[in-house]
Amino acid sequence: MNIARQQLIAARYGDASQPAPAAWSPIIEHLLKHRSVRAYLPDPVSDEQLAAIVAAAQSASSSSNLQAWSVIAVRDAARRAKLAELTGKQPQVGEAPLQLVWIADLARLERVTQITQRPGEALDYLEMFLVAAIDAAVAAQNAAVAAESLGLGIVYTGTMRNQPEEIAELLGLPPKTIAMFGLCVGRPDPARPADIKPRLPQSVVLHDERYSLDAQTPGIETYNAAMARFYEEQKMKVHATWAVHSSKRVANAGALSGRDRLTEALHARGFALK
Amino acid sequence: MNIARQQLIAARYGDASQPAPAAWSPIIEHLLKHRSVRAYLPDPVSDEQLAAIVAAAQSASSSSNLQAWSVIAVRDAARRAKLAELTGKQPQVGEAPLQLVWIADLARLERVTQITQRPGEALDYLEMFLVAAIDAAVAAQNAAVAAESLGLGIVYTGTMRNQPEEIAELLGLPPKTIAMFGLCVGRPDPARPADIKPRLPQSVVLHDERYSLDAQTPGIETYNAAMARFYEEQKMKVHATWAVHSSKRVANAGALSGRDRLTEALHARGFALK
Repeated sequence: MNIARQQLIAARYGDASQPAPAAWSPIIEHLLKHRSVRAYLPDPVSDEQLAAIVAAAQSASSSSNLQAWSVIAVRDAARRAKLAELTGKQPQVGEAPLQLVWIADLARLERVTQITQRPGEALDYLEMFLVAAIDAAVAAQNAAVAAESLGLGIVYTGTMRNQPEEIAELLGLPPKTIAMFGLCVGRPDPARPADIKPRLPQSVVLHDERYSLDAQTPGIETYNAAMARFYEEQKMKVHATWAVHSSKRVANAGALSGRDRLTEALHARGFALK
Repeated sequence: MNIARQQLIAARYGDASQPAPAAWSPIIEHLLKHRSVRAYLPDPVSDEQLAAIVAAAQSASSSSNLQAWSVIAVRDAARRAKLAELTGKQPQVGEAPLQLVWIADLARLERVTQITQRPGEALDYLEMFLVAAIDAAVAAQNAAVAAESLGLGIVYTGTMRNQPEEIAELLGLPPKTIAMFGLCVGRPDPARPADIKPRLPQSVVLHDERYSLDAQTPGIETYNAAMARFYEEQKMKVHATWAVHSSKRVANAGALSGRDRLTEALHARGFALK
């Protein structure tokens, strides 16, 4: 148990000298074992598995219990192929037998205000879009954790925001809804295994009482080195540090793969974003 | 095991006739047991517990591995009292021995682009703010699940967005960072127990292949009845259905408790939101 713990912490931080915390649980061990799976077997995800995954998603917290999210289960092969086409042609989107598409959903709340014959003016504010996006995210994370506990693999599909209007049409989304991200779900292909990706040292992300930017610099250097070792071990031909790779990702509007027009797309989807 | 499963599903949906899915795991059981805790004992959360919780948070997925979030651990009693004052005077914020404040953090990435001497123009887009918010949310949800596995209770503090500039000052936040929400963490007070809150039926939140709004109406009615039973069992004096309660929450700008000015606050915090 202690060896597994130490190995998991070493893998999670790409640093064999990182001490494992004395506090631990089987749940924490499960969470630390997460790796993003991009190679799937075609075996379907059953309705029973889906029901358990969605019950777990619904068990996550929800802002004021508004439950401002929906999830669409896409299993149809033609629709998955179309989704893959609209999300940057990543092979895993077509390959995974199930794509869960997570919707920031203010349409249901609008319907609820129609039923109660009350105004729903706050639905036009950025805050309510954010409530819906965060509700969807915490629900999706519970779904991810639950799916992995059933022996399934997952990877998020952030490129679901590349062409939101086309995705909306494909999935029949009404106004005041938008796909935030997808979650590929399926049995991992053991012939193409994934590995745990190291993360930034805790000294970079965790702050004591007040935020400090300067305190993060040494940890970022440590992490560049850890990621270089990881890329080498994985035989990935990455010829740049994490810092350079991340800088490229935020260099300019073009690096956002269409998502630089997210405000426009949200307006088109009926979110006024006041 | 099967009885516990059936009881958990019945509690989660406020419906004793709801069948439990055949797919199950101890992790799913843990997730379904979540209840928001608003009454805490003063016992501190240890550094070892915090390290395990943060490692779990970091094990969640991150968009392009940018890790655009930070978390601030607030344990100082005076600072917690000030946080409580700024977040709608909810007693649990002052009472919980630890408040984890989750930050949408583009300041670190800006620093990274300065280190690599590259442009960071995409940081000015709404998309990158959303990346940071979603990264923070999925990390926080893993933290919540991990904390509960250590016998701790949690509840989210969405009111962290009521007065973002004041929170930023209290926590020393630099430009391009903002507190998204807090997470109260501590030992639940057994004298003031919390219960599992029912959620909408799966027929409302889960869609097959394409979204349907009309299909949700019967489930919303079912849920109004389930919540009425829940309020009565809890002896909560709620004299409105979930639909009316939710409608009030989105009625107008005033119902957002200051969050109607989130766009303005984000601009003030250095997010251009292009």
